[in-house]
Amino acid sequence: MTKWVYGFGGGGAQGSADMRDLLGGKGSNLAEMSSLGLPVPPGFTITTEVCTHYSETGGTYPDGLEAEVEQALARVEEIAGARFGDPQRPLLLSVRSGARASMPGMMDTVLNLGLNAETVKGLAAMSGDERFASDSYRRFIQMYGDVVLGVAHYHFEDLLEDHKLDRGVALDTELDADDWRFLVGAYLKKAEEILGQPFPGNPKEQLWGGIAAVFRSWDNKRAITYRNLHAIPDDWGTAVNVQAMVFGNMGDDSATGVCFTRNPSTGENAYYGEFLVNAQGEDVVAGIRTPQSLTIAEREASHTDLPALQEVMPDTYAELLEVRRMMEGHYKDMQDMEFTVQQGKLWMLQTRTGKRTTNAALKIAVDMVDEGLIGTDEAIRRVDPAQLDQLLHPSLDPDAERKVLGRGLPASPGAASGRVVFNAEDAEGLAQKGEDVVLVRVETSPEDIGGMHVSKGILTTRGGMTSHAAVVARGMGVPCVAGAGEFRVDYGEKIMEVAGTVVREGDVITVDGATGEVMLGEVPTIHPELTGDFVKLMGWADEVRTLGVRANAETPADAETARKFGAEGIGLSRTEHMFFEPQRIVHMREMILAAGEEERRAALDKLLPYQRQDFVELFTIMTGLPVTIRLLDPPLNEFIPQSEEGLAEVAAAAGIDISTARARAALLKEGNPMLGHRGCRLGITFPEIYEMQARAIFEAASEVAKGGEKVVPEVMIPLIVTREEFDILKDVVERVAAEVKEASGTRVEYLVGTMIELPRAVLLASDIAKTAQFFSFGTNDLTQTTYGLSRDDTAHIVEIYRDKGLFKRDPFASLDTEGVGELVRIGVERGRATRPDLKLGICGEHGGDPASVHFCQKVGLDYVSCSPYRVPIARLAAAQAALGVKAETNA
Amino acid sequence: MTKWVYGFGGGGAQGSADMRDLLGGKGSNLAEMSSLGLPVPPGFTITTEVCTHYSETGGTYPDGLEAEVEQALARVEEIAGARFGDPQRPLLLSVRSGARASMPGMMDTVLNLGLNAETVKGLAAMSGDERFASDSYRRFIQMYGDVVLGVAHYHFEDLLEDHKLDRGVALDTELDADDWRFLVGAYLKKAEEILGQPFPGNPKEQLWGGIAAVFRSWDNKRAITYRNLHAIPDDWGTAVNVQAMVFGNMGDDSATGVCFTRNPSTGENAYYGEFLVNAQGEDVVAGIRTPQSLTIAEREASHTDLPALQEVMPDTYAELLEVRRMMEGHYKDMQDMEFTVQQGKLWMLQTRTGKRTTNAALKIAVDMVDEGLIGTDEAIRRVDPAQLDQLLHPSLDPDAERKVLGRGLPASPGAASGRVVFNAEDAEGLAQKGEDVVLVRVETSPEDIGGMHVSKGILTTRGGMTSHAAVVARGMGVPCVAGAGEFRVDYGEKIMEVAGTVVREGDVITVDGATGEVMLGEVPTIHPELTGDFVKLMGWADEVRTLGVRANAETPADAETARKFGAEGIGLSRTEHMFFEPQRIVHMREMILAAGEEERRAALDKLLPYQRQDFVELFTIMTGLPVTIRLLDPPLNEFIPQSEEGLAEVAAAAGIDISTARARAALLKEGNPMLGHRGCRLGITFPEIYEMQARAIFEAASEVAKGGEKVVPEVMIPLIVTREEFDILKDVVERVAAEVKEASGTRVEYLVGTMIELPRAVLLASDIAKTAQFFSFGTNDLTQTTYGLSRDDTAHIVEIYRDKGLFKRDPFASLDTEGVGELVRIGVERGRATRPDLKLGICGEHGGDPASVHFCQKVGLDYVSCSPYRVPIARLAAAQAALGVKAETNA
Repeated sequence: MTKWVYGFGGGGAQGSADMRDLLGGKGSNLAEMSSLGLPVPPGFTITTEVCTHYSETGGTYPDGLEAEVEQALARVEEIAGARFGDPQRPLLLSVRSGARASMPGMMDTVLNLGLNAETVKGLAAMSGDERFASDSYRRFIQMYGDVVLGVAHYHFEDLLEDHKLDRGVALDTELDADDWRFLVGAYLKKAEEILGQPFPGNPKEQLWGGIAAVFRSWDNKRAITYRNLHAIPDDWGTAVNVQAMVFGNMGDDSATGVCFTRNPSTGENAYYGEFLVNAQGEDVVAGIRTPQSLTIAEREASHTDLPALQEVMPDTYAELLEVRRMMEGHYKDMQDMEFTVQQGKLWMLQTRTGKRTTNAALKIAVDMVDEGLIGTDEAIRRVDPAQLDQLLHPSLDPDAERKVLGRGLPASPGAASGRVVFNAEDAEGLAQKGEDVVLVRVETSPEDIGGMHVSKGILTTRGGMTSHAAVVARGMGVPCVAGAGEFRVDYGEKIMEVAGTVVREGDVITVDGATGEVMLGEVPTIHPELTGDFVKLMGWADEVRTLGVRANAETPADAETARKFGAEGIGLSRTEHMFFEPQRIVHMREMILAAGEEERRAALDKLLPYQRQDFVELFTIMTGLPVTIRLLDPPLNEFIPQSEEGLAEVAAAAGIDISTARARAALLKEGNPMLGHRGCRLGITFPEIYEMQARAIFEAASEVAKGGEKVVPEVMIPLIVTREEFDILKDVVERVAAEVKEASGTRVEYLVGTMIELPRAVLLASDIAKTAQFFSFGTNDLTQTTYGLSRDDTAHIVEIYRDKGLFKRDPFASLDTEGVGELVRIGVERGRATRPDLKLGICGEHGGDPASVHFCQKVGLDYVSCSPYRVPIARLAAAQAALGVKAETNA
Repeated sequence: MTKWVYGFGGGGAQGSADMRDLLGGKGSNLAEMSSLGLPVPPGFTITTEVCTHYSETGGTYPDGLEAEVEQALARVEEIAGARFGDPQRPLLLSVRSGARASMPGMMDTVLNLGLNAETVKGLAAMSGDERFASDSYRRFIQMYGDVVLGVAHYHFEDLLEDHKLDRGVALDTELDADDWRFLVGAYLKKAEEILGQPFPGNPKEQLWGGIAAVFRSWDNKRAITYRNLHAIPDDWGTAVNVQAMVFGNMGDDSATGVCFTRNPSTGENAYYGEFLVNAQGEDVVAGIRTPQSLTIAEREASHTDLPALQEVMPDTYAELLEVRRMMEGHYKDMQDMEFTVQQGKLWMLQTRTGKRTTNAALKIAVDMVDEGLIGTDEAIRRVDPAQLDQLLHPSLDPDAERKVLGRGLPASPGAASGRVVFNAEDAEGLAQKGEDVVLVRVETSPEDIGGMHVSKGILTTRGGMTSHAAVVARGMGVPCVAGAGEFRVDYGEKIMEVAGTVVREGDVITVDGATGEVMLGEVPTIHPELTGDFVKLMGWADEVRTLGVRANAETPADAETARKFGAEGIGLSRTEHMFFEPQRIVHMREMILAAGEEERRAALDKLLPYQRQDFVELFTIMTGLPVTIRLLDPPLNEFIPQSEEGLAEVAAAAGIDISTARARAALLKEGNPMLGHRGCRLGITFPEIYEMQARAIFEAASEVAKGGEKVVPEVMIPLIVTREEFDILKDVVERVAAEVKEASGTRVEYLVGTMIELPRAVLLASDIAKTAQFFSFGTNDLTQTTYGLSRDDTAHIVEIYRDKGLFKRDPFASLDTEGVGELVRIGVERGRATRPDLKLGICGEHGGDPASVHFCQKVGLDYVSCSPYRVPIARLAAAQAALGVKAETNA
């Protein structure tokens, strides 16, 4: 028979910390603390399975639950020496939620259950404090009314305010026992008036009402939203913890507080916490009174006169010190605990693993290794890779004031301020004058690269997490907020407008690419430093991981950043990004608008020296490491000038008239360029393009190799759907390589491989692997075609789908393991069936997403490649994956 | 040990007709005829495996070949009673190609091998005709020089012309033996001059030269092109047939001719053929002399005075009659034979299954069943389903003159003439005046539907076989040439221009949608009739096939055509096509530009009655049969008016100002609409749209059901990628169905299923099948995403890929079995794993392609659905698939 209820307290427990799935975080830790002999008020936990039953059956309980609750309650009464509903010695109960994953404040709680007209007298007698008893009763009526019965709390607050006006007082503390008694009556009357029936006085009825309310709150709107945001499954459910009340507000020998076994902000190995004398937990949260420090050291550090717990309750403090020692020794991690002192007696109400800043996480993990508490593997597990982002980018000063104008997608982390400009040219102009600029565009195109480079931040009103702006900004490490749909940009007027505020060119705004917020004016930022702990931990991570980590980079600056962050090569160098500098773009456009092969070759000849120089720089920076170079990929129309002037310039350079240029440009227009004339199709139709690129690669490689450096080029052919097209283009590359070798006399080892970025390439992988020497899964494009979703157009759809729970996570940000991942798995299997030593990597945006890195490890890839700033994240995630840490994925 | 050479002649053979793969068509039939005791000149066949060896090794022969050739040659010499190279009784040989599949005229042939200065004298003595001998010798020098040695034939022709000028004669026949002897000398001298060495006189050297030339010709350009066009694999290779020469030009008791055992044009069961007295085969082909009929009946029918073979060589004719009897009895199919009479003796040189018109194919197949020669299964196998197209559409009179302007893709079969118009409105206007029009557009959009309906033919300059124009035209049965890229259309001037010719509005052109040709002026067409033979054969086909055949149709006219052609229901009714009629489009646009749900519902309410009426008509026509209705699928921006007037009209109807309308329209614009906000994403974001459509379906269904008709609606939700989105929309449909049932009191059975048209739906098929009641594979879209190719943009790329042999066939026209087909296979497997009785169909354009139908049978689909005019093709192809006929596929 299924057990639905687990008791704890009195120095023992039926549950334990490893029953988190069944008892929730709070319940399992209460059981654990109780078993350890810590002073935990007795209680019991109703399991998450009951919640699931309750949800699925539309609000009924499983058979046997009621009897188990009765039994558990009897045990609580026995331990507490009080009886629920007893007019003389009434037991009061709290009813709290407690899910498997922490969802702070998202669900409901009811305190002081068991109070009614009779038991309130018993409470007064037991505590010797009538005012306290009546105050507790009115608190209970308000809380229970609001949470269980749906009587909005303002009804009660209005009554309290009216009474204070009548009495001519300002503060609750000025009210006496009679006032509270009067208000209890008024509250009960108001509740009856609204409900049309009396407020429930029966303690058992109150208890079951409270339990049901907690279960119901699992499906309230904010809990659902929180779960969607944190990828918590709806079917986990919450447990309910019913526990004897203890009171921190029973006089000056009572108190309530929270404490962390180490400093959660800095990671320092010192007790850290705060408390209030004669108060309940909600008073600490409410922030009306200023809490006092736990320790004298803490008090001195915060320059306050309020005495520390160490001073006012030295015995309790000594007891808490012992609790700290036991808890860290037992849990081997920093704990965040709640305690209450009732008339001098310490009660522990909760413990959980404490949240901490990234710096604290690093320091605690490394310190605990030094202290011998944990090993290096455990230290690696302790730091959330995604959190490392904070360390690598400036962030907003949390204490600074900010006026949020609106928000978009957190597309590239970091925060920055600058003057608003509305096009790339203005960005470059203003930046040259030494101004910080934020580039605001509806969406960006490759033409904007120059302007993006000089901007401190980027804001777009359209596009998703893998839109052009987002991908490029992440690559450059420039903070970016993308797809901020509520902003309206008017290029003509050079203004943008959001919720009635108009921002003009030259106005200063701040973008926070970590949260997606856009603020008016300059908000101060904090520039974090990479600590020794970071270096130490990353060193341990590198020792255990088996997955290689490369970077997506094409500029020397990006390549240097990548190497600094520990990239083991370049996994994707997008050659098209090299064609947008002003002196090159005209030749590029000449090439695109050429009438035939001859004209095209003439333009390509002009591009060759630039491209060669790019590769010389890349190979020099990445000496000894592999550099994967993708041949030209995007639809040619991306290079078409948008303006008449641009067109005129190209026409002049190419020696054709503008109407011819316009006509040729029109021919390049496609209804769905993402599914058009791009990738290796360019190489098939215009082999001379790939020929030039291959020449640039091998000439650069021999030049650098001649200088004694080791060069490892890996030439990657994009958008393959048949082996035959790969073979044709591989021949082009090999022929050029042989010619260059012949001419230069230098032998350079190289590989020719392909991106696997279309479903057909996956399905034909065993054939393609016959000649391709490596595969790199291009999961951005693969996600687009697998879902039939364009990353540039469908940010709003992805958003709607996430809100509705149709997508667990944005599939462009975190690999869809069931669909796209299934294709990757098939591709790996089929590719390796033909060529067991096939080198396999991934170079989509997913390479820097921890969950996706775990998936890559699972399917047996050799490396991931991601934007330079995500390299440390990928290194740590890969180490965790190697250690078998379970990661949340999209599946 | 592999046998490389197979001898035949003298009443026996080492090979037989079933060794076609090894001996080629010609070789295997020569062996068969020889075994049957027919008079076949002795010879031998070198196998196709030798050709493969020759190609793969760059021109070498396998060990043992030379000895086998020597041996076979000795046997030929023995049977012929002559020796190769013998000056007295020289054996002369022909060397001909002969591949597994017929490739007429694509490869090389050398005749009269063995002639030199010595043997020519022997030939003169044997034939008693010096002129004949020298003429044969000079023909040999020219042919061998051209084919084997690479001396272009014009060199020889120039010498002949010069000599005729010198001699003052006009015709070859006026030259005598001395002239030919003189020319032989001149030819030999010229060849030596060009080659730098003497023309080879050694017969053995000549023989091996000839064999090598035939093998080489397998890889000549026109042979490769032919193979690409006819999907013949490059590795099949050709056999070489070496055979003793016989001469039809040895005097008036000699002749040469061809005969068909039945009339290849009408199928009539009567001998049919033609011949020339004293001539070689090449003279018949050259067409200089008018051939004579085989039979008296034929002579009379063609009103000619030239006597028939039956009259001039009655004994030979009698022999040929016996040959005909034997051949039809043996092959059980109409044969196309070549014969030569040498000095009164009949020789059979070749037989093969005769090509025939579709009408002849039907008649012969049905007649042969009646004659007891074959069974009905064999009759079904005999007719090529693709050929049926001819019967269903008018075709150009083959005898009519035509001036071809240019060509595009044969996008919708049939031929039609009419006045050129450049937009749908003009088409409707001119058609109303009773004029035949041909609509010419760069590409069509749903806005053009009205104009397309009234046009006799359609021509577009952009788009592929599954572009909008092509798909819609095929559905309507309107001839269409698509993607004719060489045509330049100028809408402003209302002209189009191609290769220097300007065609103006109102000019008459003719389009042939079967060939892709566009002609100036009106070319007469032939309107074929569906014969009784057609009906009989289709009846047999329906009895054997197991695959259902439905039609893609939405208009009543299309649905009626479909039912007439034997469709067993509608597999795809595209509801969006119903929204383009003038009175509806404004409401549709109001709906699209609505600011919110309320406005949208108001517009939908106006559309409901139209949509309901559409379904009433469809259900009535298709009574008793399933009707699959796809809910709204295309991106909404397809409905946005292109013109300012259109926008103004909608703004007025919706009660908003035009700038608001323009702004809302701009918001709908997408960079890649094919991957955008479409399909079920519309249903998720605007459930009220699908709600209205479901209401229209079920209200129509109960209305028709009330009239006593059986209605079988199958509601299809497009573009699904997760089961969850399907479930949400299935709920909408079921809720509306229940409401309508409640209101009408009529119970209608229905299914709710989905299109599987994105790779992710395939991968998740086992999950989706939990709730989807049927799958219909949308292989058009699936091909787009699997290949990453837009069907509207990439016609020219598909063309280039086909030319280069990268695509065997256009994957939009014939299912790519390796890639897209693999996905279909996975989808079937996963779907049926969850729901074994899952109903499975295909509704892409591939449903009407015979090879694709075979694939659908193989993977176990329940039905195919195709455009109404392709229903008979699908029925026949399905029957053949059920019979296990092997079809060419893309794999």
